Amino acid sequence: MLSLAMETVRKVAQESKESSYRLQCMPLEKRNKALAAIASELKKRKTKIVSANENDLANAEKTGLAKVLLKRLKYDAHKIDESIRSIESLIKQDDPIGKILDSTELDKGLILEKVSCPIGVIAIIFESRPEALVQISTLCIKSGNAVILKGGSEADQTNKALADAIIDSIVSIDRDFDGTVQLLSTREQIKKLLELDDLVDLVIPRGSNELVRSIRESTKIPVLGHSEGICHTYIDEEADVNMAVRVSFDAKCQYPAVCNAMETLLVHKDIASKFLPKMAKKYAYANVEMRGDEKTRRHIKVKPASEKDWSTEYNDFILSIKVVSSLDEAIDHINRYGSHHTDAIITENVLTARKFLDIVDSSSVFWNCSTRFSDGYKYGLGAEVGISTNKTHARGPVGLEGLVIYKYRLYGNGHIVADYSGKDAKKFTHRKLT
Amino acid sequence: MLSLAMETVRKVAQESKESSYRLQCMPLEKRNKALAAIASELKKRKTKIVSANENDLANAEKTGLAKVLLKRLKYDAHKIDESIRSIESLIKQDDPIGKILDSTELDKGLILEKVSCPIGVIAIIFESRPEALVQISTLCIKSGNAVILKGGSEADQTNKALADAIIDSIVSIDRDFDGTVQLLSTREQIKKLLELDDLVDLVIPRGSNELVRSIRESTKIPVLGHSEGICHTYIDEEADVNMAVRVSFDAKCQYPAVCNAMETLLVHKDIASKFLPKMAKKYAYANVEMRGDEKTRRHIKVKPASEKDWSTEYNDFILSIKVVSSLDEAIDHINRYGSHHTDAIITENVLTARKFLDIVDSSSVFWNCSTRFSDGYKYGLGAEVGISTNKTHARGPVGLEGLVIYKYRLYGNGHIVADYSGKDAKKFTHRKLT
Repeated sequence: MLSLAMETVRKVAQESKESSYRLQCMPLEKRNKALAAIASELKKRKTKIVSANENDLANAEKTGLAKVLLKRLKYDAHKIDESIRSIESLIKQDDPIGKILDSTELDKGLILEKVSCPIGVIAIIFESRPEALVQISTLCIKSGNAVILKGGSEADQTNKALADAIIDSIVSIDRDFDGTVQLLSTREQIKKLLELDDLVDLVIPRGSNELVRSIRESTKIPVLGHSEGICHTYIDEEADVNMAVRVSFDAKCQYPAVCNAMETLLVHKDIASKFLPKMAKKYAYANVEMRGDEKTRRHIKVKPASEKDWSTEYNDFILSIKVVSSLDEAIDHINRYGSHHTDAIITENVLTARKFLDIVDSSSVFWNCSTRFSDGYKYGLGAEVGISTNKTHARGPVGLEGLVIYKYRLYGNGHIVADYSGKDAKKFTHRKLT
Repeated sequence: MLSLAMETVRKVAQESKESSYRLQCMPLEKRNKALAAIASELKKRKTKIVSANENDLANAEKTGLAKVLLKRLKYDAHKIDESIRSIESLIKQDDPIGKILDSTELDKGLILEKVSCPIGVIAIIFESRPEALVQISTLCIKSGNAVILKGGSEADQTNKALADAIIDSIVSIDRDFDGTVQLLSTREQIKKLLELDDLVDLVIPRGSNELVRSIRESTKIPVLGHSEGICHTYIDEEADVNMAVRVSFDAKCQYPAVCNAMETLLVHKDIASKFLPKMAKKYAYANVEMRGDEKTRRHIKVKPASEKDWSTEYNDFILSIKVVSSLDEAIDHINRYGSHHTDAIITENVLTARKFLDIVDSSSVFWNCSTRFSDGYKYGLGAEVGISTNKTHARGPVGLEGLVIYKYRLYGNGHIVADYSGKDAKKFTHRKLT
């Protein structure tokens, strides 16, 4: 039974790989046509998809799924329209593949090009949110990658309806899309898939930290994912107090459930007496639970913060606050306890800001603005694969550019290496072409 | 005892991490000064280093190390001079960090920059060749990374002498280089280091396929490495026969011990009778052992090739040969049996060439030239970290650009996200700045 499952999964991955080779040279026109077909098919099947989702919702309610998860699971007509709009804007985006990134003449008639190209086969494992299925499949198609999808079991019927719509549309445009999008349905299958590092080139988990961690631990395939979002705002001694209050309020309160919301506020000791009472008043209005270190509690009456608070992602109206003696202490705290996601400084001093932006080792470092700006849409990247806290390949909000890599093409005219060695060796010119 | 070892290794990695933060904003001038100091120190300590290497060589001979490994282990005055020259050329290279890769106005006064920056802490595990220690440490210093080194135990004394020279030189330039270069000496320590995915950002193994594979299997840290080099040359029916012979000879014979040498020759059936006898004659002169499939053996008298030959990296004067019926068959063979390293086509037909270059899924794809050109120095990248067969981060010959990543910097003036949502929401401009 197990070996049969393995065979099935290997067959899926093999078809995916073959399809990925066909995609390598598929013209942009055809990829965009496939995207347009998906948008129109989603419109046509709206009722069917919504009713599949209603079934999932009813089943989930029966099994007692938490309210916040039910909300994520919901995929109604309004959300389908959003998905369609997002596909339409994806069609308008530049082709991410086939870009000449670099071109060098190695010698007369020997020209090297570095060209962007698809990665190959991408496995996407996501929880709840059915819109992720549409968003990520379409990003993969635009960038010429084949994709193997696995959603949460609570969304089974919705995912099936969406995957069917996508597969039917693209295959109707060209049979070369056979195998480009495939859906797996069981955990057992994903376990098998994660073993196939000879066929799958990249795994992107979209969901909880636990999901990302467990996948990292169970595969040799590169994983593009995020760890937690423990984001900081540091109020420097030379901060504009009004700006500091305004920005820190937004960073915590504008939408606390997301990874780019601030979790810890760091305050320079010399501005604490001016800043903290004003800030605390504003947070108190919004019912933010504040937890401060000892020095903080000299200025405002809040609960004490424990060591554990510095490395906790609340995703809620809770905030830890620490008074620091210097810029260096703030930076050390962020690099030590943070998750290298997004961290901001509020200061009027450009040199202080520069040092903070240089040394804080996070994918996004901000000066005088809210951490909540850290997001693919706000950055103008178009749709987003996710926010990566990796230190290699792609970091921060990742759009299409995280789904491509490059290859080198060398055009010669019978050139051989023997001519460039020994006596009378020819010399390389290494002339940069634009 | 074991937990003590773990503590030591964690301390090393921790120091490395702290040093990496100091390097994030170290000016190019100082990094180049450190490189110059290393070059001059290597010159001064030449006798000492050579004598350490002679001890290693003597010990290795006693333990019966294979001749080819002894040759790799040798690091004499001549090789030291080569290392020095390579450092001098590295000093001249552009700064790989601090480059503005992209710049966007999100809204008036809210400017986003994507800036190249160091990765952080890089662990390098290499076998034999002591010059790799110098080359990779200096590449890491140039790109602002801290590096933890582990060489083969047969080169212990040489590695120690080289690491001492490097560390003494850079620390003499600035104490901020404390911990930038560190040397581990036991396998046990490496095992521990590979567990520290919270401190080490990237592992680069330089050595045999077995080394690379065993490291991939034992760590969650991203690995930048190569698999084998099973490189192909495909002789299309529209090839210039003389060019095909000349290039295929170079690809196999110019230096067969390296990963970019050709291992399998694919020949279109309609050119086989013209090409194969001529080619075989030339290979026979060079004592190349040819192994052909059944169709090949209709044209030339050679040993039969087995299924295993198609996926074997000989690194020797041995070659497998297969006759194919079409371009598609050639491409399928390469994508199936190859190692996605370097593959070439010989043809006069530009459309045939284009299809080959598009669909062959290798980091380097060549038209009418020898696979032996696949190399960082020949590509004009300067010194090389290695050749990567990864599908993410860095692919093909990897120079300094494989040691950097990017961060996003956002400069605001009190901007908050609340202003961009709800009624009267401000709109993003997303204007590309150059």
